Amino acid sequence: MPDSRRPVPTTEVPAWDFEADVVIAGYGIAGVCAAIEAARAGADVLVLDRTGGWGGAAALSGGWIYLGGGTPLQRALGFEDSAENMETFMTAALGPGVDAAKIHAYAHGSLEHFHWLTDCGVVFKEQFWGEPGWEVPHDEGLGYSGGENAAPFKDIASPAPRGHVPQMTDKRTGVRGAGYMLMKPLVATAEALGVRAEYDIRAQALVTGPDGRVEGVVARRFGKDVLVRARRGVVLATGSFAYNTEMIETYAPRLIGRPAAAIEEHDGAGILMAQAAGAALAHMDATEVAFFGDPQMLARGILVNGRGQRFIAEDTYGGRIGQAVLIQQDNAAFLIMDMDSHEEALATETSTPYFRQPPTWAAETVAELEADMGLPAGALTGTVDTYNRHAADGTDPLLHKKTQWVRPLTGPVAAWDMRGFTAGFTLGGLRTDVDSRVLHVDGAPIPGLYAAGRCTSGVCAGGYASGTSLGDGSFFGRRAGVSAATGELLDLQ
Amino acid sequence: MPDSRRPVPTTEVPAWDFEADVVIAGYGIAGVCAAIEAARAGADVLVLDRTGGWGGAAALSGGWIYLGGGTPLQRALGFEDSAENMETFMTAALGPGVDAAKIHAYAHGSLEHFHWLTDCGVVFKEQFWGEPGWEVPHDEGLGYSGGENAAPFKDIASPAPRGHVPQMTDKRTGVRGAGYMLMKPLVATAEALGVRAEYDIRAQALVTGPDGRVEGVVARRFGKDVLVRARRGVVLATGSFAYNTEMIETYAPRLIGRPAAAIEEHDGAGILMAQAAGAALAHMDATEVAFFGDPQMLARGILVNGRGQRFIAEDTYGGRIGQAVLIQQDNAAFLIMDMDSHEEALATETSTPYFRQPPTWAAETVAELEADMGLPAGALTGTVDTYNRHAADGTDPLLHKKTQWVRPLTGPVAAWDMRGFTAGFTLGGLRTDVDSRVLHVDGAPIPGLYAAGRCTSGVCAGGYASGTSLGDGSFFGRRAGVSAATGELLDLQ
Repeated sequence: MPDSRRPVPTTEVPAWDFEADVVIAGYGIAGVCAAIEAARAGADVLVLDRTGGWGGAAALSGGWIYLGGGTPLQRALGFEDSAENMETFMTAALGPGVDAAKIHAYAHGSLEHFHWLTDCGVVFKEQFWGEPGWEVPHDEGLGYSGGENAAPFKDIASPAPRGHVPQMTDKRTGVRGAGYMLMKPLVATAEALGVRAEYDIRAQALVTGPDGRVEGVVARRFGKDVLVRARRGVVLATGSFAYNTEMIETYAPRLIGRPAAAIEEHDGAGILMAQAAGAALAHMDATEVAFFGDPQMLARGILVNGRGQRFIAEDTYGGRIGQAVLIQQDNAAFLIMDMDSHEEALATETSTPYFRQPPTWAAETVAELEADMGLPAGALTGTVDTYNRHAADGTDPLLHKKTQWVRPLTGPVAAWDMRGFTAGFTLGGLRTDVDSRVLHVDGAPIPGLYAAGRCTSGVCAGGYASGTSLGDGSFFGRRAGVSAATGELLDLQ
Repeated sequence: MPDSRRPVPTTEVPAWDFEADVVIAGYGIAGVCAAIEAARAGADVLVLDRTGGWGGAAALSGGWIYLGGGTPLQRALGFEDSAENMETFMTAALGPGVDAAKIHAYAHGSLEHFHWLTDCGVVFKEQFWGEPGWEVPHDEGLGYSGGENAAPFKDIASPAPRGHVPQMTDKRTGVRGAGYMLMKPLVATAEALGVRAEYDIRAQALVTGPDGRVEGVVARRFGKDVLVRARRGVVLATGSFAYNTEMIETYAPRLIGRPAAAIEEHDGAGILMAQAAGAALAHMDATEVAFFGDPQMLARGILVNGRGQRFIAEDTYGGRIGQAVLIQQDNAAFLIMDMDSHEEALATETSTPYFRQPPTWAAETVAELEADMGLPAGALTGTVDTYNRHAADGTDPLLHKKTQWVRPLTGPVAAWDMRGFTAGFTLGGLRTDVDSRVLHVDGAPIPGLYAAGRCTSGVCAGGYASGTSLGDGSFFGRRAGVSAATGELLDLQ
């Protein structure tokens, strides 16, 4: 068969190499959750992964999973939340253009999803981490992960931390990352349910019956075609297209040269094979964008663009800063700090050495710094004057950074050239409904085809919060498993 | 047959209602140019249009067509240009992520394309219009239409006007718009070549043979299916998806509620029917964005965002301002002018009454204006201080507005609230090669299927210049016609 994405007719299949009720392509977070639910629904499940083992990007990730609505962990640590409050935040922060039905289902199903995860053996330690940062420094179980407590969202929804982090210490094997500690119990759960796995096998194209129903996949293993029959359904859980250069150029060109997905297997394969069967896409330009600056420094300084202007509350979620820098500020950002604040930031326990850089310029006055940076006279001094004027009162009426981080810049100052300090992964993909059925461009589901995780467009249409990828991958992965196994649809909306 | 976009197998076609060598869906700019070239290549050509006549969005448009590389009109009016210079500008202004092969073919084929258009009877009057504005005020034939002579592009490529405007006076019928005056001679050319047209007939889905080759279209006419056979090829020229609410929500949500394509038939139909056959897409988020401000006023004022900061050279192309406002400034913009400059702008011949609005706020000083606008103290005054400081020397080192428009703001000032003054149409669509063959997601052309115009992703990946839609629609429409008629490929790169 050709090295193509085009669906292969079942009539051209001479014999099946593997058979199962539900065949899942990809053994990351969406794949394992689909496998568990499909198996529990009575299906014989086979998971294919192109690498030598389970895990996907999830096992290598920071492990944040976005949960709320008043989880036991939130409540134990003194935070109030509700499904409605969570839905309000997600709608505001993850758009424009969010899939309202998905957000609604996700927010209202989050509490049940928390219990499902812990029932599978995922452990969240009852400890909150409230400092600025990308990752929790130890094994804390809860933190802000999307700017919920920063402007403008703190005034849109009641702030609640929803970044749940699996506890990182595995007593038997030593310290492991939170992503691994999320995946490990889930895979153990799947295995206990009899889920089978085949590795080093790469799904390549769908096999379709005469009525267009998906009946299996063509895969490649060690250079040979392998034909896998799916009696009930195929679940695509193959990850993003962050490492497909051509797709990045055609859909998300701002990410050219700056991918940051966890694994290079994220080449869009699942998206392409479904597209070849007429699947619709959504939000292909949407991207998570990391900003490689130390949050402890950012919160204490002011961040300016290439014109010396502030543009975002510096104490917000780093991913939000990254998106603003890359999309709205032409990938140009400069951090301005006075020496006192810089020393204070470095003295904190969680200033991240990885993110530390020496300043690019240092000067006795802002006017000198402005000249050293090559900015027009008045561009930066005007910005600092206005910032200082209000900071003297502990306020930031321009961007509403929280009072605790607002202090006039005084004395010697320094600037960090952070142009191009961004990288990211893609959030766009297959258009699916709330039951994880892949939708054809004419709006109807493609029979026998389901998908979840970053090969789909999930809860994030534009914005991002850490934990939403593992979050919607697991949540809608489960639904993909149920739908594929039973053909029945959940109605949890 | 169902009301679906899914390809219909030829084996299910009981009888053909119409037959032709080349069938073209859509009689706008791409359709007519495809028709002419297909007919000249010896094909029997049938054009289908869902409305009651030819014209499409093109006939209702401002008629700008982007041509350069040293056209006779450019040279007669004293402007130097080259294909390389044009390619440099287009690459810089229409990205990020431009299709380099398309830009190269377009820039190097532009001179020949000019002659082709004039040979078809399109008339460009030898008169240049150099004032700020969206459209030429009379029947001038040439103007800047993409910010070529404004920062930053004036320093990237040698400025040359490339907006060619068909002369608007039709001596027999009175004054007609330039878009009509572009379409009319082209349709006459097609008709003289024997091109047939059927109106009130809406292409709905493709008809495909057993090998996947496109062999016709299913269309709807007065509620009934009509089957149209294409012996050699089908050309999709059905326009953008600006009026497809679901596609806007899923691909370009910033345009929700603000479409500005010329005609509501731009519902993405051609994109969807090709997608259903496995066609790839590109740049679905890209959008042209108009900004409804008077360019004569904008050039003389300063434009600030919701934080009171300048962000773009105010004398550049309005579409560039529109994109910056919508995408980078959260759709917030305020025009600040002093009274002298305002009066001067209104006194110009081409200040556009349509764009005039009374000021939202007026005050004796910038500080008062700032307070009236609800901006933090220092936000706007700092901006104006820095602007005035350099304007006194006739410079704008922050954004490089041209010296002729730079003057300190003095005396009473006013502000216009221009939040939401944007609308636009979509630039993304089917992925085609330089021969206008529609590409399958696996990279190979779909046999028998061609496309051009705004149902494809053309020369604009992100940025825009007025005239590039009629430009690439006509240029790659011609190639679609040749390719469909002959199966031979141009190699003009």
